[in-house]
Amino acid sequence: MFSGVKPDKKSKVKGITQLGSRSSSSSSSHSSNSNTTRSNSSSGSGGSSSSSSSNKGGGRKSHSGSSSGSSSGSGSPPAGTPPHTQMASHESLNSESKSSSLNSKLGHESGGSPSPPKSACSSTSTTSTDHHHTNHQVSHVLTATSKMTVRDGSRTLRPDEPPLVPGEQLEGTAREVTYLCPYVGPKKGTLSVTNYRLIFRSPETDPPFELEVPLGVVSRIEKVGGANTSRGENSYGIEIFCKDIRNLRFAHKQNDSQYSMHLKRDMNISVFRRYRVRHNFAGYGASQTSEENHSRRMVTEKLLHYAFPASHKLPFFAFGYCEQYPENGWSVYEPIAELKRQGLPTESWRITRINEQYELCETYPAVWAVPAAASDNDLRNVAAFRSRGRIPVLSWIHPESQATITRCAQPLVGVSGKRSRDDEAYIQHIMDANAQSHKIFIMDARPSVNAVANKAKGGGYESEDAYQNAEVQFLDIHNIHVMRESLRKLQEVCYPHIDNSHWLSNLEATHWLDHIRCVLSGALRIADKVESHKTSVVVHCSDGWDRTAQLTALSMLMLDGYYRTIPGFAVLLEKEWLSFGHKFAQRVGHGDDRHQDADRSPVFLQFVDCVWQILKQFPHAFQFTEDMLITILDHLYSCLFGTFLYNSERERIEKEVKTKTISLWSLILSNKADFENPLYSSNTKHHVLFPRTSMRHLCLWDKYYCRWNPSMRQQEPVHIRYKELLHVKEQLEKHVDELRKELAARQTHDSPRVASAIV
Amino acid sequence: MFSGVKPDKKSKVKGITQLGSRSSSSSSSHSSNSNTTRSNSSSGSGGSSSSSSSNKGGGRKSHSGSSSGSSSGSGSPPAGTPPHTQMASHESLNSESKSSSLNSKLGHESGGSPSPPKSACSSTSTTSTDHHHTNHQVSHVLTATSKMTVRDGSRTLRPDEPPLVPGEQLEGTAREVTYLCPYVGPKKGTLSVTNYRLIFRSPETDPPFELEVPLGVVSRIEKVGGANTSRGENSYGIEIFCKDIRNLRFAHKQNDSQYSMHLKRDMNISVFRRYRVRHNFAGYGASQTSEENHSRRMVTEKLLHYAFPASHKLPFFAFGYCEQYPENGWSVYEPIAELKRQGLPTESWRITRINEQYELCETYPAVWAVPAAASDNDLRNVAAFRSRGRIPVLSWIHPESQATITRCAQPLVGVSGKRSRDDEAYIQHIMDANAQSHKIFIMDARPSVNAVANKAKGGGYESEDAYQNAEVQFLDIHNIHVMRESLRKLQEVCYPHIDNSHWLSNLEATHWLDHIRCVLSGALRIADKVESHKTSVVVHCSDGWDRTAQLTALSMLMLDGYYRTIPGFAVLLEKEWLSFGHKFAQRVGHGDDRHQDADRSPVFLQFVDCVWQILKQFPHAFQFTEDMLITILDHLYSCLFGTFLYNSERERIEKEVKTKTISLWSLILSNKADFENPLYSSNTKHHVLFPRTSMRHLCLWDKYYCRWNPSMRQQEPVHIRYKELLHVKEQLEKHVDELRKELAARQTHDSPRVASAIV
Repeated sequence: MFSGVKPDKKSKVKGITQLGSRSSSSSSSHSSNSNTTRSNSSSGSGGSSSSSSSNKGGGRKSHSGSSSGSSSGSGSPPAGTPPHTQMASHESLNSESKSSSLNSKLGHESGGSPSPPKSACSSTSTTSTDHHHTNHQVSHVLTATSKMTVRDGSRTLRPDEPPLVPGEQLEGTAREVTYLCPYVGPKKGTLSVTNYRLIFRSPETDPPFELEVPLGVVSRIEKVGGANTSRGENSYGIEIFCKDIRNLRFAHKQNDSQYSMHLKRDMNISVFRRYRVRHNFAGYGASQTSEENHSRRMVTEKLLHYAFPASHKLPFFAFGYCEQYPENGWSVYEPIAELKRQGLPTESWRITRINEQYELCETYPAVWAVPAAASDNDLRNVAAFRSRGRIPVLSWIHPESQATITRCAQPLVGVSGKRSRDDEAYIQHIMDANAQSHKIFIMDARPSVNAVANKAKGGGYESEDAYQNAEVQFLDIHNIHVMRESLRKLQEVCYPHIDNSHWLSNLEATHWLDHIRCVLSGALRIADKVESHKTSVVVHCSDGWDRTAQLTALSMLMLDGYYRTIPGFAVLLEKEWLSFGHKFAQRVGHGDDRHQDADRSPVFLQFVDCVWQILKQFPHAFQFTEDMLITILDHLYSCLFGTFLYNSERERIEKEVKTKTISLWSLILSNKADFENPLYSSNTKHHVLFPRTSMRHLCLWDKYYCRWNPSMRQQEPVHIRYKELLHVKEQLEKHVDELRKELAARQTHDSPRVASAIV
Repeated sequence: MFSGVKPDKKSKVKGITQLGSRSSSSSSSHSSNSNTTRSNSSSGSGGSSSSSSSNKGGGRKSHSGSSSGSSSGSGSPPAGTPPHTQMASHESLNSESKSSSLNSKLGHESGGSPSPPKSACSSTSTTSTDHHHTNHQVSHVLTATSKMTVRDGSRTLRPDEPPLVPGEQLEGTAREVTYLCPYVGPKKGTLSVTNYRLIFRSPETDPPFELEVPLGVVSRIEKVGGANTSRGENSYGIEIFCKDIRNLRFAHKQNDSQYSMHLKRDMNISVFRRYRVRHNFAGYGASQTSEENHSRRMVTEKLLHYAFPASHKLPFFAFGYCEQYPENGWSVYEPIAELKRQGLPTESWRITRINEQYELCETYPAVWAVPAAASDNDLRNVAAFRSRGRIPVLSWIHPESQATITRCAQPLVGVSGKRSRDDEAYIQHIMDANAQSHKIFIMDARPSVNAVANKAKGGGYESEDAYQNAEVQFLDIHNIHVMRESLRKLQEVCYPHIDNSHWLSNLEATHWLDHIRCVLSGALRIADKVESHKTSVVVHCSDGWDRTAQLTALSMLMLDGYYRTIPGFAVLLEKEWLSFGHKFAQRVGHGDDRHQDADRSPVFLQFVDCVWQILKQFPHAFQFTEDMLITILDHLYSCLFGTFLYNSERERIEKEVKTKTISLWSLILSNKADFENPLYSSNTKHHVLFPRTSMRHLCLWDKYYCRWNPSMRQQEPVHIRYKELLHVKEQLEKHVDELRKELAARQTHDSPRVASAIV
């Protein structure tokens, strides 16, 4: 069963197909298992098994590593049904979970179908005492296999051992575990834990059911049911809460003797009483000896260990991952090169290395572009008046009008209304650098009440009395706590089941799209000022690393088609998010077990969602597809790559991230073809995109938020799509020929810079 | 101003460009004005003025006649702003009505923008007494110009007289009328009424603002404000409620003497008191003599006359419309040819002309396909047991399995549970005609409670005891009254303004998408039974002409790609809707002034909406675009074509519709290129489409329901689109070449019959 070698699987796990040179006899240290792969390559996730034809589609989606087998790319009907029947029954479900409704008489749900149960069983009564038991007994159920993959080329894998990525090590395997899939029901199989992933395989279906979850995605692990108290099938196990919307439930087998005792209890209530006493004693004592208990305990311990390395003073898996990619993603962004691309230095803008040692501002990058009129001393004085020294520096300059977008943190105005002549002069320099306008906008991302409230903490916003020719506008975007709560609500209405009859109002109640609209509107306003009014804009929020990053990056994406290419988007993220100190580690909580940390917030996810909204409205203006966005989000959590680790450029330099880990852009640039948008028209590079931002033009990104639901799956294998594309292309060719003739017969006008949304 | 001749305008009004032979000197009776068109051809509707470059786009959209100048096709920035600024400000509005919000400090609406006023003024206090005044005085304000366009080729049009379609006559013109646009505010201009349209033109903008509404679209006309009581600007006029979602408000100028009296009133309350007495007297008497009063009265009378010809025993305008089209749409559907296309007659199915004189069933067509095993006598006996004689006859037969879709009305079971051996045998014949299955489904479109309730009225549904091998399923689709109320609510939340912050919950509360989902799910279930289970399905509701038509037509559209071509769709409508007696006249209320008639219901609109939902999910599977669907809906109301007039084939024969009116398909087939979908892939003809029907895969068709809102307008002229298409095509070619190579390297499988949704 495990003897077949299939390149697709290799590509899937490694996210790369080009490494044919890594052959089976493992000359490099961590790759001994990479050749020993299973014969069937697709893996199921979210509950549905995968198809037998895993080609381009399966291989492509799975580059993301953490979303391997995710619904969007695999296009797999359930095993055993012919493809066209599958689609019918799939669709005939009419909702998420009712496969038999089509055939059941009167079973048709109309407007008010009952909401399916949220989860197979509740996780409220978890016994956290188990957690503190040490592993005094290494059970055979959880096989301790540390280091087994290292320099052991001659060893053959056991049938239920999963293939690993280079650097990955199998840490333990628990058998007879049941995955409680909320969509297709329980699946019995083997749960393996590595230093990178959790892998569950069930041979119950053909092809086997598979689930892979990088441990970086885990937010919280809870035990469900006590070893001796839990009765009934699947009531004893663990629940894993993930950062990517889904939750996973596993049930561990219970002790036979306990089970028989349960049976006895049914017949003899006195036995039950004795049992409860014994349990209570055992539950709070230290004498749990049953084998099954250890299965869960070992799994939990290994999971906690590798899911939360930061809490255990362990390195992230990215530091052990040793895949080789033909492209080196670390070189995609060179700050000077990007500034030069924008035309810098100019008469009015200079490049400074004043922060090379991160002394002036530790959360800012080493290289800045600042007004030429401002001396280094001016910069130091301005830094003293801006929160955390985050002074206004250049994000983007218009190639024609020289109107700019600059970003910073709030001014330290305070309750007394302090002023800084240097800061005021500096803003004036920014304005003066743009000869086209005698005005400058200061866009404060916050609601105005929050901006005012910040004065009490020493912050605040620019007074228009102090800043001549400046107009302050508030963009009403709420803070990280509001966004976190909104996503929590969104998860509740998306996963695992959607209540069709209240979907729209439930969605509205999450306010997720409201927030998206607000961020998009703010960015649109900035882009509009710069493009249409030729006026420079200074953007800030409180610290200038959350909402500000969203706004500058989104407005730059609208204004500059370069950022809509694959390498350009990488540059945009490296520049506006990573180098300017969006606190990825804090916001995501990489490797940290404090799942309730108030610093966590889906700020970056929200940004990517906004990008998707624009992409959806301008499908021909982006070189990449939404698959790339999903892959980026998956690796935001996976900790497979060094890209999103730590909070600032400075920290990444300290940790030698560039030399000790691999960049996510290595994966993406090495597999560029997989993320390319066939509809991309490169002449849109010169267009400015002004997306529609009213509510009815926004959609929930269901391919991301609802992807664990099997009903999101494609209805046909991807190669069928390709065939269709060929035909579409022929049709298009004919049509375009006609249009070309028609065009020739008409007068053509100059193409405006602004493209139109397809809504 | 009116001297220019522009072919586009001609094409716009007539919906045809090919008629170059109709030259300026009007040899045919009604065309004398067709050459005398304005130099600027685009017309605004819903409030926004149109662009100066009205080419393909403007001409194309306007084929619909009744939606001329509608937003979707014209791509027109407001006059005076350069195109790219326009898009910016257009979009920057962030909502429907706040053009200054971007520039206003703190004016940014976030989550909770206040809902704009629904309409400029309320229509509750209309004085219906005016209605009864006869036109004892033909005022010069409303110029009586009847017949002026007939055989008067030498006459030149006055500058404010609109160009007319052949057969159209100018009936009157009122000057100094103000159109109260809910989006761009009041526009002063000239209101003309013809025997076909209402035309409003305002020269205030350049190009002039234009609004054209075929009178067939008018549902209700109300006067707003009394002639003497109304004070303040624009408080006196008429409000026109349309069947296509929008309402129009016009204000008529008030008498100067009255106005001065108002002024006096302000200064001298005693004058006001005197005035009120005088008014009350005048209001209920017959002595209204002021000129302005006549303006409104004449307009109202002309409108009532020509908007409601059926109520005035006048012919529909379709009988006067005398455009010439190269294609004759009446020949698109030949019942026998369509049955032959489906492979009939077969061993098991015969074609009968038993209803040639519409004697067996007056609402059914002349030609039926019935089971060969049933004799003519059997048919008569079955007709006696089915509501209104609507017996099960063939709608569609599967080309391979021979599974069929048949349609009928409910059986006359009644409270006593009557049975008919003939009906039972007949259903058995239908089952037996399909050798693939030993079962038959009877899909009752109604909720089961309604089906049961119908027994009290002599109807009911098939008992499974009586019908061997039959399984009855209820599809839970509500009746015409529920749908009418749902659309009314939808209009409230769509027009004129959308409340962004409650859009989703407001939309949900209309239940419009719930009903769409229900209809789509029902059709999907039928298609699934026929395609995947090879089982025949009998479909009925109560009378079998509303929900049944929706279900059979939609399932046929899913199953048979022919119906997804332009002529095929025409055949589908002619067959399943027109020939089988959907009561278009009653449901739409053609030419009838009883706007509260309970027989009206948007059943056909709902069907077209369902078609759009499928088209949206399968953009490459339809030969036509949504523009064609919108055009069809516009002419559902316009009464320009004979197609949708009357309730049954029999009535249409009686009224000689085919010889005395033009078919809508003449317009569409003669301008096929305008409705063709560039993404159409003809190999999808062989695919079965199974759309997703869960709520999150359904959208509001905003290009139809929200089209009067200027924010729905395209952001760029269509010819720019075409340019882009050229570039996309090049990109696609390259990509397809790569894919082709890749495909060659892989094993290809047989393409399944079922296509995949793009969601």
